Amino acid sequence: MKISSNDTIVIRMTLAEQTKISAIIEKISALQGDIKGIDTVKVENNNSIRDITVDVIDQQHTDKIIYAIKQMPGVSIEYVSDRVFLFHLGGKIEVISKTAIKNREQLSMAYTPGVARVCMDIHDTPENVHKLTIKRNTVAIVTDGSAVLGLGNIGAEAALPVMEGKAMLFKNFANVDAFPICLATQDTEEIIKTVKNIAPAFGGINLEDIASPRCFEIEDRLKEELDIPVFHDDQHGTAIVMAAGFINALRLTNRQVGDLKVVFSGVGAAGVACTKILQELGVKNIIGCDSKGAISKDRTDLNQVKQNYAETTNPNNESGSLATVLKDADVFIGLSGPNLLSVDDIKTMKKDPIVFAMANPTPEIMPELAAPHVAIMATGRSDYPNQINNVLAFPGLFRGILDCHACDINKEMKLAAAHAIADTIAPNVLSPEYIVPSVFDQKVVEAVAAAVNKAAHETGVCRK
Amino acid sequence: MKISSNDTIVIRMTLAEQTKISAIIEKISALQGDIKGIDTVKVENNNSIRDITVDVIDQQHTDKIIYAIKQMPGVSIEYVSDRVFLFHLGGKIEVISKTAIKNREQLSMAYTPGVARVCMDIHDTPENVHKLTIKRNTVAIVTDGSAVLGLGNIGAEAALPVMEGKAMLFKNFANVDAFPICLATQDTEEIIKTVKNIAPAFGGINLEDIASPRCFEIEDRLKEELDIPVFHDDQHGTAIVMAAGFINALRLTNRQVGDLKVVFSGVGAAGVACTKILQELGVKNIIGCDSKGAISKDRTDLNQVKQNYAETTNPNNESGSLATVLKDADVFIGLSGPNLLSVDDIKTMKKDPIVFAMANPTPEIMPELAAPHVAIMATGRSDYPNQINNVLAFPGLFRGILDCHACDINKEMKLAAAHAIADTIAPNVLSPEYIVPSVFDQKVVEAVAAAVNKAAHETGVCRK
Repeated sequence: MKISSNDTIVIRMTLAEQTKISAIIEKISALQGDIKGIDTVKVENNNSIRDITVDVIDQQHTDKIIYAIKQMPGVSIEYVSDRVFLFHLGGKIEVISKTAIKNREQLSMAYTPGVARVCMDIHDTPENVHKLTIKRNTVAIVTDGSAVLGLGNIGAEAALPVMEGKAMLFKNFANVDAFPICLATQDTEEIIKTVKNIAPAFGGINLEDIASPRCFEIEDRLKEELDIPVFHDDQHGTAIVMAAGFINALRLTNRQVGDLKVVFSGVGAAGVACTKILQELGVKNIIGCDSKGAISKDRTDLNQVKQNYAETTNPNNESGSLATVLKDADVFIGLSGPNLLSVDDIKTMKKDPIVFAMANPTPEIMPELAAPHVAIMATGRSDYPNQINNVLAFPGLFRGILDCHACDINKEMKLAAAHAIADTIAPNVLSPEYIVPSVFDQKVVEAVAAAVNKAAHETGVCRK
Repeated sequence: MKISSNDTIVIRMTLAEQTKISAIIEKISALQGDIKGIDTVKVENNNSIRDITVDVIDQQHTDKIIYAIKQMPGVSIEYVSDRVFLFHLGGKIEVISKTAIKNREQLSMAYTPGVARVCMDIHDTPENVHKLTIKRNTVAIVTDGSAVLGLGNIGAEAALPVMEGKAMLFKNFANVDAFPICLATQDTEEIIKTVKNIAPAFGGINLEDIASPRCFEIEDRLKEELDIPVFHDDQHGTAIVMAAGFINALRLTNRQVGDLKVVFSGVGAAGVACTKILQELGVKNIIGCDSKGAISKDRTDLNQVKQNYAETTNPNNESGSLATVLKDADVFIGLSGPNLLSVDDIKTMKKDPIVFAMANPTPEIMPELAAPHVAIMATGRSDYPNQINNVLAFPGLFRGILDCHACDINKEMKLAAAHAIADTIAPNVLSPEYIVPSVFDQKVVEAVAAAVNKAAHETGVCRK
């Protein structure tokens, strides 16, 4: 019987002398594992080490096969790798030379003695470092491993696969060279000092997966103290793409930005940044909610970030639960947790509401539940329409700033990026299920880079 | 007339409307510039921007041509690049993905959601970071820009082209991924802290071009406080290759290591490391000299490093100038400055002396002067036989330590590397003009890596 396999595993096992591989093959086949290959890795002291590659249905199926093999005499399993693990084996990026060094002449240009003249040129004319070195095209992806994906504080080493993945996206989508800097410290001052110390080789700093509220101070201070752009992607990448979807959602529902009531669930790093960009777009009435309800000036339990938030939002000083303040809202923006929004809540919103339920992996409300009651629905997931995905913003944004040797990323550049993303969808194809482009739409990077470059010129932050 | 050109330059110029390119071509040709190409970069507002590529003899020739063009009406020169500068334009290395990301499935393996399982695996089993990430094959090239080549304290940005060149050598010679970390600090404690903070993504640290004596403390402390190997190449790379040449020089002159008198000129970072490795090889009588003469226990002007040196060398407590203590020496090792050694000095040495004059770019004595009076001569230069070049050591050394996930580089591993380099020259081809292999000899990296790996196993510093 042919199984429908969803994963491929490689089982590495040591077979004692006399152990028959055919018995193992029979066992795997009997359990409906689809054997794709048998490789002999090594034969040593009469033992043989073999890799058996098997297509399996799921983790449970894998466990069943492994359990059965473990019961067999003369077999010991070294490890089991699945397709995802094999993909990550040895790391996902590499550092290559643009030119091979095959002879003395190439060696003398790349290294001594030729390189000395290039060094002295930069020493004499410091801005030439942007022309003659990797600084022209290279970004540091900096994390302290404290808020990695939805996994929490897993530390620098465990965060590295994410940072490598991000470097791959930078290169594949925008030809930006990016390198992971995973920090063995979670102290704000040490992070700031370390990033400043390593900055000379980089043309930009992408902060990633750093917990709130520390991320705010780190970004603010580095922006102030470094002469290269600093960008906390979890805040501003999300904000830019959310804003792009928001712009198109307003177009589709014929709303004017000044009249809107927008309610946020979640005022962490991303929530604060999304609030700011909507204010810059002209939204006046924004109410943020945390787990205790609306952030208002009456609350006495607010930390500094939330106090600032209370000062600049909620002009009517509404208070109460999320459900309470959601009444008559035009827009819901969720950056919080799973299933915090009910259909009944949505029914209290204005007609044709806009709902961005971006909690990952489970949204504040599932799209199939919300659909009958909303005009437009977006999530953070790739398996529903309208995925709000940072990958739409950061590659093009950094492409733009590196191209003009920008010394900062300002709000004009972020807004320009949001408009550029929104505008990649032509009016005639814009629809409630297509308010943001696909991450594989090649027009996006180019459009964002051009818009960011233009905004950098207009606001005087580019050196070129 | 055909010139003998040594360089190619590209002159970028803006020509005002009406300016004739033919007049410029005539002028360059009249000055014997050999025009190789004319490219139009852009035409804008009636001005045209052109690149003219010209073969020239030398810098003086370039200056003459540029001066002449500058006198012409309607022409303004934007910049002049020569071949070396063009080679460095935009940096010499890039960070690429091992796999393209072209569709949703690849994206979900490299990044979310697939990457989360890999992160959690490393979180649960920390040593898996050596398998599943770039840590397995990646080295940080760390400098503070304080002692770059012979150029001195030129700073982090100006040092970057050297570090990129080094990364190219790592990749080209040994398939090691290396990334430049150029530090905006020259404070010992800050350097140590910064390197510790960025260590999680790296499998090894190569310290480079850091001034003495700070380099000693930085290396010692990092070796102690990090669980990955730390190697100051200016010290130990030089020492390993010098030792390889030394081993072969003894073979050729039938000397026994215990009987030798070895005199050093220069006891900076490299001098100290070379002294140590010779002691480990069994040399008992080593006398080091600085600019004030022999380092002996009688000297009252010694810093801490030199006091330690005095304690462990010069068993007969000789004193006086370099020329004085050189009498009856078997070996001279120079890591100091140009022309510090005379033919008369050499004549006072034992019969068939060995002279390694490694000051760069001008040796302590030029080989053509020394030749009639020495058995074996080595320098740091590529245009004489027996070049003592670090490139023979560091690629294979790091290949070896990364292959076995070593947690340290110890003296056994360094000695193993030296012997491996020496042994790549078969006895039947060993000669006074061939005591170290060519940097392009592909056997070297493999031999060094295998020897280092073996020594790491034997001394219990590898994790694999």
